[in-house]
Amino acid sequence: MKYCGQCGETIVIEIPAGDNRERHVCSVCTTVHYENPRIIAGCLPVFERKVLLCKRAIEPRSGYWTLPAGFMENGETTSEGAIRECEEEACFRPEIEKLYCLYNIPDINQVYFFYLAHLKTPEFAAGEESLEVRLFSEEEIPWEELAFHTIRLTLQHYFEDRKTGSFPFREKDLVRRF
Amino acid sequence: MKYCGQCGETIVIEIPAGDNRERHVCSVCTTVHYENPRIIAGCLPVFERKVLLCKRAIEPRSGYWTLPAGFMENGETTSEGAIRECEEEACFRPEIEKLYCLYNIPDINQVYFFYLAHLKTPEFAAGEESLEVRLFSEEEIPWEELAFHTIRLTLQHYFEDRKTGSFPFREKDLVRRF
Repeated sequence: MKYCGQCGETIVIEIPAGDNRERHVCSVCTTVHYENPRIIAGCLPVFERKVLLCKRAIEPRSGYWTLPAGFMENGETTSEGAIRECEEEACFRPEIEKLYCLYNIPDINQVYFFYLAHLKTPEFAAGEESLEVRLFSEEEIPWEELAFHTIRLTLQHYFEDRKTGSFPFREKDLVRRF
Repeated sequence: MKYCGQCGETIVIEIPAGDNRERHVCSVCTTVHYENPRIIAGCLPVFERKVLLCKRAIEPRSGYWTLPAGFMENGETTSEGAIRECEEEACFRPEIEKLYCLYNIPDINQVYFFYLAHLKTPEFAAGEESLEVRLFSEEEIPWEELAFHTIRLTLQHYFEDRKTGSFPFREKDLVRRF
């Protein structure tokens, strides 16, 4: 950020009065422009013994398989965001069971929410951001072609938990900190 | 937002190509400026049979009692944010037990995380944003002087759960939608 969104004048980096960390502050109107982590909301959609994955049509990781998920929008709840992503990426409306996995990735200022969800019927289609959408049994999961580490973790948790029939909420911090 | 943070030129409200909702877009360099919900991270700190509350020294709700909580910062995890808020507002470092309550408030684009946490010793003090910090037994909670609805809900859940000794994770959407 170089210019103030309020008045268009130049931004300086400084610690505002009463604060304890550097912020983007307008040199003229003194507006402080805070930057905060963003939420990615998604679903692990299940139909009978299979889970739904989408092959990404967009970067990053175009051509790799993902769970339907994306940036939460203003004006919606985390579960509404997760439902919307299923509608947009895979053209179906899931039934949310509960929040299942929460991942913090502080290196990229992101917090991931994955809801355990269900398809009532095996009806879906590739949305604009997907090349293909399909159901996979555990044996069919393309482990080497998954788009993100959070997707792999969530699927691993699910198939592990399915052995016991108990799906406890999980929170995990994925910290690299270069 | 009226001016582009990248180039300082004027912003227009329009739906970018490939998107499905209105965004702030620069009329010259075409940068899309996304706005997303923000996370508030906090703790419910417990010492023996009492919980810690802070009397707010700042607006909004100055003079009312709150759990230590505040906006999550870039570069930290949700639990790190919750710990930092205890350090800043009440001058102690909590031991986090687990994520306890999650509230979506879509009308104001906020998602609240409250961690169940413990004080090892009853040592704390008012930080810069607090007028006073103290421990309250259930009978002493100033129910009419709590700062926010999320604080009331979290305390109600806690004292209800304490009767059974089981503190399950709770997710609740607080939707007004005027």
